[in-house]
Amino acid sequence: MVDPLTRLESQHSNILGKLIEFAAISSVSTDPAYSSGMRQAGEWVLAELQAASIESRIIPTQGHPVVYGEWLHAPGAPTILVYGHYDVQPPDPLDKWITPPFEPTIRDGRLYGRGVSDDKGPMIIPLMVAQAFMKTENALPINVRFLFEGEEEIGSPSLEPLMVAQPELFQADFVLSADGAMWRTDEPSITVASRGMVGLELRLQGAAKDLHSGRHGGAVANPLHAMAQLIHSLHHDDGKIAIEGFYDDVRPLFESVRQEIRNLPYDGETYLRSIGATEQVGEPGYSILEQQWTRPTVEVNGMWGGYQGAGSKSVIPNEAFAKITSRLVPDQKPDDILNKLQRHLESNCPAGVSISITGDKHGAEPYSISVDHIGLKVARMALKEVYQKDPVIVRMGGTLPIASSFKRLFDMDMVFFSFSTADEDFHAPNEFFRIQRLYDGLRAWTIYWKMLGDQLSQ
Amino acid sequence: MVDPLTRLESQHSNILGKLIEFAAISSVSTDPAYSSGMRQAGEWVLAELQAASIESRIIPTQGHPVVYGEWLHAPGAPTILVYGHYDVQPPDPLDKWITPPFEPTIRDGRLYGRGVSDDKGPMIIPLMVAQAFMKTENALPINVRFLFEGEEEIGSPSLEPLMVAQPELFQADFVLSADGAMWRTDEPSITVASRGMVGLELRLQGAAKDLHSGRHGGAVANPLHAMAQLIHSLHHDDGKIAIEGFYDDVRPLFESVRQEIRNLPYDGETYLRSIGATEQVGEPGYSILEQQWTRPTVEVNGMWGGYQGAGSKSVIPNEAFAKITSRLVPDQKPDDILNKLQRHLESNCPAGVSISITGDKHGAEPYSISVDHIGLKVARMALKEVYQKDPVIVRMGGTLPIASSFKRLFDMDMVFFSFSTADEDFHAPNEFFRIQRLYDGLRAWTIYWKMLGDQLSQ
Repeated sequence: MVDPLTRLESQHSNILGKLIEFAAISSVSTDPAYSSGMRQAGEWVLAELQAASIESRIIPTQGHPVVYGEWLHAPGAPTILVYGHYDVQPPDPLDKWITPPFEPTIRDGRLYGRGVSDDKGPMIIPLMVAQAFMKTENALPINVRFLFEGEEEIGSPSLEPLMVAQPELFQADFVLSADGAMWRTDEPSITVASRGMVGLELRLQGAAKDLHSGRHGGAVANPLHAMAQLIHSLHHDDGKIAIEGFYDDVRPLFESVRQEIRNLPYDGETYLRSIGATEQVGEPGYSILEQQWTRPTVEVNGMWGGYQGAGSKSVIPNEAFAKITSRLVPDQKPDDILNKLQRHLESNCPAGVSISITGDKHGAEPYSISVDHIGLKVARMALKEVYQKDPVIVRMGGTLPIASSFKRLFDMDMVFFSFSTADEDFHAPNEFFRIQRLYDGLRAWTIYWKMLGDQLSQ
Repeated sequence: MVDPLTRLESQHSNILGKLIEFAAISSVSTDPAYSSGMRQAGEWVLAELQAASIESRIIPTQGHPVVYGEWLHAPGAPTILVYGHYDVQPPDPLDKWITPPFEPTIRDGRLYGRGVSDDKGPMIIPLMVAQAFMKTENALPINVRFLFEGEEEIGSPSLEPLMVAQPELFQADFVLSADGAMWRTDEPSITVASRGMVGLELRLQGAAKDLHSGRHGGAVANPLHAMAQLIHSLHHDDGKIAIEGFYDDVRPLFESVRQEIRNLPYDGETYLRSIGATEQVGEPGYSILEQQWTRPTVEVNGMWGGYQGAGSKSVIPNEAFAKITSRLVPDQKPDDILNKLQRHLESNCPAGVSISITGDKHGAEPYSISVDHIGLKVARMALKEVYQKDPVIVRMGGTLPIASSFKRLFDMDMVFFSFSTADEDFHAPNEFFRIQRLYDGLRAWTIYWKMLGDQLSQ
């Protein structure tokens, strides 16, 4: 009888085919237009759990359901909670995709499609590893709970309520996350921190209706001018954030961490060139990685108003909109930053327009984990076996909203063990996933589970 | 046999029906998606000219065609060129319309629909008046050329080339325009000036593609922030325009004109309330009417970039757009202002983004006409007869791009004799036309033609 690793190697093309099937389902959580895709994706995940003989079910929530499974038949062995998400970002701007977002396409060893890297590629790895163990050994080496949510891309609003309502589903030694991202393709890495986030949407209203810019122009407030002024007021000219008290709780950056970051094999110029940027901007006094890993931001993710069609239209629009998010670092608190941001916008709102703000109620705290955590130690060993080199210690600019919930509610740490890579254009057109990483991940997760079983059973 | 006035009165509901038919044709000139509506509208106008036994034809141009007709059988009598346009503004935002823009609907004595006031209602008046004269007297009291263009809403790019190519079509004593607008419903008015206009579209580009705001945020330029900064830089905090040299050629506002404006029956507070605005903004030191009639502006008509859908999206977009127009007053020159605006945008473009600008090649000069012009004198008499009171002298904040072309190429003045009213939400949702004005206009134009024939034949 073959072992799980051998079996997985023989199944590579089948597994790639499954990913293509999964990624073809348009499971966009933020937009109700995609609700049938969401339902289909959840059922797809459930079927794969069942194919591994994992007891599993779909758990309804206020929003998109959670797909849950458990295999708890390794008495004495540790229990982990595998986390991933089956929802994806919206695909627009559609016209920038080389091949359609929901028709996954292979080019040059990469699979292109919305969600292939974030998080469908990484999250099918534990599913396939579970199937391989069960088909070959009829058992997993550890106890595993599987939790795949459908709201990661909208801030996981239903997950914490589920934790409160059914805490028994979450009893585990730690969370092993299939979400997150490896830092580089050529350098295995272990992530020890991620930024938090809050967001809001903003509407400015001028007159009661759109006005002709000839008849009315000159005396009447233009909400687009007001929006420009207000958005500009969020930053000082030097790039620092101008919101009062914004930096109050930011933990100072220790020299040891700066040194750790400086030691990484990283060239800022190469990075800027790779994304087509001409220069570093932002808060002065920090390197690019320090800015992206250890410093908070305020970013406008969308801004609009008035006429956007072909040609011109002589209009003073009566409303303007913006979507704003802020990335947080320890020890900023989401509620506090949301309040400060809101207060700034309200008190800087220009004359002649009124402001209304819809705050995101589900901010995410920044997160960090000790490098000595058992889950990280095993991750380092597993990565070393797959890549034949020691992984580097990195941080993450992005946000995993639930990491802080697990910590706060269950004092449970989250170990990021994703095989996507940070350059794979998730949240952008032409998202891709390196197919080799799928195969690396299958090996690494198999080794991880085995090692963890051995470690803690010793 | 009835006279033209009596005949027109008996035809009111027929004529209203014709306007409804005409306004149901979606002739949006700026957007190629509406090209069939444009063609249909031109043919509709041609058929109405032919119904008046006016020799007429469709004249192709580089853009949308001109519908031209002439009746030149009144030797010794003056010749006028009747001007109007059959194109309309785009109907968006569609969701703001109470009834669909191209399904003209009567409510409370008003006809609602895109283009009913600008300019389809006003422009069918001379068509119907010509039909009435021909049906009753088989002749017009003066020589009339009819010129209806299909590109007024996009700056009349093809009209000046036609003037140069076929100047014989334009030989007339002056232009009598069915476009423009009466100032108030309760006060007949004569317009003696209009503002000019230039426009451009602006694109800012940051990175080569949209970026994840978690991974990249903090070090990379956000084109939306840059756009906010750049748009904000166009105005000083006090409301004056901050573009270098912008006011250089602005003719000082004479005390006599300020007095004329002050004497008008006008209450700024009432005006602001009527449009739902909370306060007067803009250039300090001028009244609302002075700002709107005699001072230049820079307005953003549209601004956009990033995610606009439901929910949120953690993206740093890689581009941002804006459409900007500037209203000009004597003696500003469109090319000069366009250059200065462009220079300002380029030299104030923030770090980390690149700028590209598409200038509107068809700027319109500001226009003014002497109150002693014969065409204005007749207009005052005709209005007095219809409304039983002397019309007031007003200016116009809007732009009629071709008024300056007629002046420059043929030294021909343009008399505005439109029966739309400035509050009828042209260029906005729920544009309407007061049905009584249609009937007033039919009388006034009939009287005008008769009086002009009498005047100049004396």
